[in-house]
Amino acid sequence: MSGSSFGNIFKITTWGESHGPGIGVVVDGCPAGLALNEMDIQSFLDRRKPGSSHFTTQRKETDSVEILSGTFEGKTTGTPISMFVRNTAQKSSDYSEIASYYRPGHADYTFDQKYGFRDYRGGGRSSGRETIGRVAAGAIASKLLTELGIIISAYTQAIGTIEIPNPERPLNEINIEEARSNPTGMPDKETSLKAEAYLKECMKKLDSAGGVIACRVANLPAGIGEPVFEKLDANLAKAILSIGAVKAFEIGDGIKVATVNGSSNNDSFRKNGSSVTKATNHAGGVLGGISDGSELILRAYFKPTPSIFREQETVNRDGEEITIQIKGRHDPIIVPRAVVVVESMTAITILDMLLQNMTARVDKIKNFYKK
Amino acid sequence: MSGSSFGNIFKITTWGESHGPGIGVVVDGCPAGLALNEMDIQSFLDRRKPGSSHFTTQRKETDSVEILSGTFEGKTTGTPISMFVRNTAQKSSDYSEIASYYRPGHADYTFDQKYGFRDYRGGGRSSGRETIGRVAAGAIASKLLTELGIIISAYTQAIGTIEIPNPERPLNEINIEEARSNPTGMPDKETSLKAEAYLKECMKKLDSAGGVIACRVANLPAGIGEPVFEKLDANLAKAILSIGAVKAFEIGDGIKVATVNGSSNNDSFRKNGSSVTKATNHAGGVLGGISDGSELILRAYFKPTPSIFREQETVNRDGEEITIQIKGRHDPIIVPRAVVVVESMTAITILDMLLQNMTARVDKIKNFYKK
Amino acid sequence: MSGSSFGNIFKITTWGESHGPGIGVVVDGCPAGLALNEMDIQSFLDRRKPGSSHFTTQRKETDSVEILSGTFEGKTTGTPISMFVRNTAQKSSDYSEIASYYRPGHADYTFDQKYGFRDYRGGGRSSGRETIGRVAAGAIASKLLTELGIIISAYTQAIGTIEIPNPERPLNEINIEEARSNPTGMPDKETSLKAEAYLKECMKKLDSAGGVIACRVANLPAGIGEPVFEKLDANLAKAILSIGAVKAFEIGDGIKVATVNGSSNNDSFRKNGSSVTKATNHAGGVLGGISDGSELILRAYFKPTPSIFREQETVNRDGEEITIQIKGRHDPIIVPRAVVVVESMTAITILDMLLQNMTARVDKIKNFYKK
Amino acid sequence: MSGSSFGNIFKITTWGESHGPGIGVVVDGCPAGLALNEMDIQSFLDRRKPGSSHFTTQRKETDSVEILSGTFEGKTTGTPISMFVRNTAQKSSDYSEIASYYRPGHADYTFDQKYGFRDYRGGGRSSGRETIGRVAAGAIASKLLTELGIIISAYTQAIGTIEIPNPERPLNEINIEEARSNPTGMPDKETSLKAEAYLKECMKKLDSAGGVIACRVANLPAGIGEPVFEKLDANLAKAILSIGAVKAFEIGDGIKVATVNGSSNNDSFRKNGSSVTKATNHAGGVLGGISDGSELILRAYFKPTPSIFREQETVNRDGEEITIQIKGRHDPIIVPRAVVVVESMTAITILDMLLQNMTARVDKIKNFYKK
Repeated sequence: MSGSSFGNIFKITTWGESHGPGIGVVVDGCPAGLALNEMDIQSFLDRRKPGSSHFTTQRKETDSVEILSGTFEGKTTGTPISMFVRNTAQKSSDYSEIASYYRPGHADYTFDQKYGFRDYRGGGRSSGRETIGRVAAGAIASKLLTELGIIISAYTQAIGTIEIPNPERPLNEINIEEARSNPTGMPDKETSLKAEAYLKECMKKLDSAGGVIACRVANLPAGIGEPVFEKLDANLAKAILSIGAVKAFEIGDGIKVATVNGSSNNDSFRKNGSSVTKATNHAGGVLGGISDGSELILRAYFKPTPSIFREQETVNRDGEEITIQIKGRHDPIIVPRAVVVVESMTAITILDMLLQNMTARVDKIKNFYKK
Repeated sequence: MSGSSFGNIFKITTWGESHGPGIGVVVDGCPAGLALNEMDIQSFLDRRKPGSSHFTTQRKETDSVEILSGTFEGKTTGTPISMFVRNTAQKSSDYSEIASYYRPGHADYTFDQKYGFRDYRGGGRSSGRETIGRVAAGAIASKLLTELGIIISAYTQAIGTIEIPNPERPLNEINIEEARSNPTGMPDKETSLKAEAYLKECMKKLDSAGGVIACRVANLPAGIGEPVFEKLDANLAKAILSIGAVKAFEIGDGIKVATVNGSSNNDSFRKNGSSVTKATNHAGGVLGGISDGSELILRAYFKPTPSIFREQETVNRDGEEITIQIKGRHDPIIVPRAVVVVESMTAITILDMLLQNMTARVDKIKNFYKK
Repeated sequence: MSGSSFGNIFKITTWGESHGPGIGVVVDGCPAGLALNEMDIQSFLDRRKPGSSHFTTQRKETDSVEILSGTFEGKTTGTPISMFVRNTAQKSSDYSEIASYYRPGHADYTFDQKYGFRDYRGGGRSSGRETIGRVAAGAIASKLLTELGIIISAYTQAIGTIEIPNPERPLNEINIEEARSNPTGMPDKETSLKAEAYLKECMKKLDSAGGVIACRVANLPAGIGEPVFEKLDANLAKAILSIGAVKAFEIGDGIKVATVNGSSNNDSFRKNGSSVTKATNHAGGVLGGISDGSELILRAYFKPTPSIFREQETVNRDGEEITIQIKGRHDPIIVPRAVVVVESMTAITILDMLLQNMTARVDKIKNFYKK
Repeated sequence: MSGSSFGNIFKITTWGESHGPGIGVVVDGCPAGLALNEMDIQSFLDRRKPGSSHFTTQRKETDSVEILSGTFEGKTTGTPISMFVRNTAQKSSDYSEIASYYRPGHADYTFDQKYGFRDYRGGGRSSGRETIGRVAAGAIASKLLTELGIIISAYTQAIGTIEIPNPERPLNEINIEEARSNPTGMPDKETSLKAEAYLKECMKKLDSAGGVIACRVANLPAGIGEPVFEKLDANLAKAILSIGAVKAFEIGDGIKVATVNGSSNNDSFRKNGSSVTKATNHAGGVLGGISDGSELILRAYFKPTPSIFREQETVNRDGEEITIQIKGRHDPIIVPRAVVVVESMTAITILDMLLQNMTARVDKIKNFYKK
């Protein structure tokens, strides 16, 4: 069944395999009148580019985006925006061996079971390159959200057991520029250096590491999210879990809420001039699946890169148990390059639900259509 | 925007407020020929019934279900199955006070912000009674899955900091009957008694507690889940987060994967007679968003009941800061009654994706339609 | 697969068989703040009620609607509106015979082929009573559209070969009150009497008749409809063809456009004060699938009631050719009672697309969310 | 709102403007294992190519398709198939004038009203070139249907008032090869010549013509179509009305049913060996929205090309009434090139609903998943 679309009003459809002609996305339902050019997209894509540090593959991927439709005279027209990134750096020969066996932690076996065979070149559709389409679409969603004053910031909170200090600190104490310049995606230089040392150790041991990405949304108005199945946090959970390698999702205090009492977990409401705020934000900005006007906070937990250079045991397509040693170029960690993917999926979800909310009230509809 | 439907092929639409005439669900897309009567549904609903212990509200809710359509001569016909539970035990007077202020941890404020006003009687649409529709639909999904040999078992893993020993133990070492008879939903008598003592303590302190529900799916065939946005785990995450009070979701090892290395997290494939299995199951039964034939394991983290009897600070609809004390009957914990809700949402998701998978291969389609 | 829902933002889900406990609909996504009570719905349902003339079945169907959710203190709350009409006048014994054979022109055979068996009592889900849910939902859509100044008027244009004179006349020359009081649904007394005479003749011959329903929408703003698959007229076509017995759909001049030239079919634009109008309206109010601000005009062509009292040849479930004579109470024509169904489906579609249009432009979104 | 996708399980998303970089489509949900290469697509696209006769524009459009994803080693993989046709022959200068005014019969005015501005080059998204994506997707759907033995044949039934003789004749008396070689798309040489003469006359008068396309589906199994809103004919109506310039849709006898009696319109069932057939096929292969195993017949009515070379009156963007004379290259009729578009939309709809039907019965699901 079709499964490559996400969103309802602002809907994206991604396509492409890592070793086919290219990767792309169609963004349908983008409102008309948004100033948009290829640089807006490219700056997002460059944030997931490999080759920028020791911890990302040294492949030269230019990942240049071409906008094929949906803009005219520098603005979106309301029609589908098709974006295309040609694959240029792939060598299928690198991957010929993996055709015959199932790599542990990868989707080789499950694709074979589902479809009867698979495009085995570099993971095919389950390759990390699939996220290019998400990021290109996320760049558009982010740009529109920024025009509405809504700012989304993702960064690395932890790599392995190395976590930034005081991860719950206010957003204005998170140095996002620092996060974007550090090879780890962490907003603290010192912690980042520790994490880099840990990753070098992992590489030396022919092993890989996991980590945690936090994403925070500032200035989201209250009222966003549709009861009861299209809750804001439910859609964010789906958005984040749809990213390969994510194994857990938290909103607000997340798993911690299970061990505390209601008296400490409840956020008291407070008066703030003429508006209402909360004294604390254990909820992470969502009550009953609807945004409450506080900062929205979510976390994504990534498993270690499954491609490791150690010997591993597995089974080949003939059902024989074998020992393999994966070759090629593989990041020892997924997290740093996934920061912009988490940010993009969050932006796409938030924008879609912001648009969904516009039809919630008769008085506002009347006002919209009054002459 | 419409947000009360879940699922694609097997689609449920729930409706109803806690203090309106009743609660219901329409199950559309249920295949024809399933033996079904009201007892099948009632046995599921009875598992979420209040009044069965000290830790659930003492309201007398019979919650008797009536099937209004979609069956004929004891079997489903393929047409929508409408199910209806009349509200009988609600007294609106209990709730008149909460009309004027925003209860901390509840959706009062966000509904007001979204819709301009709200049905304030007992939480309206955001009441826990909304889950009646989910459970009625889940009973049908579970029955059909059982006929396909697929068994879904949810139980309480932890209440507050009290956790069952060795929560990762094999499913056959989990005593599901015990879980269903204990007031906590825990599969171990001893741990359950500890948790009961803890809950009594909470009640004495006019406070509430959170907890963790685990859900495991046995005999799920490999190949279920649709890349890349309709991944099996992504849809399960949405299903679980759409349940009120859930703040985190894990598949397999969940958050733990962030701190381990690839060499320990990867599950090796093994030969098992003519089929393929995994030596371990850190992945929780899903690789690349597609089931791998292993047991599927997920966890849902619930916050403490937000309605507590202690004094709390909040704001009223006029924007004044006030101190409130919630009255009425409220469970000190949501978890025990939510076990069957988690099980139901899992069943609905699994069945829907099982049906979605039927069109994955040309050879199987040809076989289906051959004369 | 689920097929009982219609609409995207304003979404309806109907359920119920003619001889089960009842018929109903869930309206999800109705904006909050619309004044609504059961009388609003009942007045629409009464327009499709049988027993009001010689040409409709003499069954006593009260068809009393109960609103089960989604309103509070006389207004919609934004949550699903569940409506229920209990079946009261059905006698299954009337229909026991048809269990064994396939009535010509009915869906008996196709339901059996699809589902393996069928609820044979009175047509089950393919009964005309299924439209009760559509009409109940249409009443809500119409009420909201009326508040936006948009008026939908359906009436009978033709019965058999008897057509109202000058069917293309301006809407203000169509007497809608007359149409609603005449048993034929025609807006002209004289033509209606001719049609009544024709129908009596049909009944005498144990035969049935078809007809045409026109539906016109006044004051629809320009810009409604989503290129390229969610065109306004494409969705209306689906809405109308989803009504049982409809075999053709026209927008504007419809089939006539195939035989004329562009020079006569094109509608010239004209200045009208500060706005733009068209000199003619061959297009029927839609250009490129988007409303152009002119009156919207569509037509639905209904086949004769398939249940006729003459002897007919058919096949039974054992595959034997037999001669049957249908008994019971059946209208000699579907059209008069279907007028309000066409009006309802048009209203639901128009409202849904009006809501969809609210996210078309960045400037309007900014304006909506500005503080 | 997103409106560029069609289909549910087999879902297509088209994109592209006539004068942007290109036109394309993403086909998501195509089952794995279908042999497919670019020639399969190209042969369909060539059927809508201009320049093949006097009656189609003399622009040189090569319309070469590139498959960018979703196939591996000559077979579909189950992942999205992205297809791309670069625009090569467009000269924007041809269209610069139309930026300032609204062409009668075109979507210029409605796009401006909806989006605030438009891509005015050659109609932008409402150009006929948009159908390239539909036809590329239709080629895939047709190929898969052919493997299932289902054959779809569209042809021109009428141009202006010139109709093929005996249009209701059996499909085996329709010469489809003749239809594909005649410039009119008509299956009769003699009628085609008459129509050609008529079209030459139209061109001489600087005018344009409309026409009718018939589409017939052979070997469709009974049981396809989902009650009550996803009826087979309802979805076909939407598919056909979504094609620009279509103003009416008929299934089976279509508008004629309104004037006949039930006794002549009902199709008697007959025994045919061990299976059931119908003595006649007024229904056009659909009963209650579900295929009945007979041939499916539909008709699409096209308006004349709105771009004519005569002087026309209209209004410019400043609201002034002006007289215009359209230049450039425009077909005097849309119909011949639209035949393959009707065939494609029919194929896409039929395939999608054939896949939807696979989950209708518990017994068949059990059989599908049995080990």
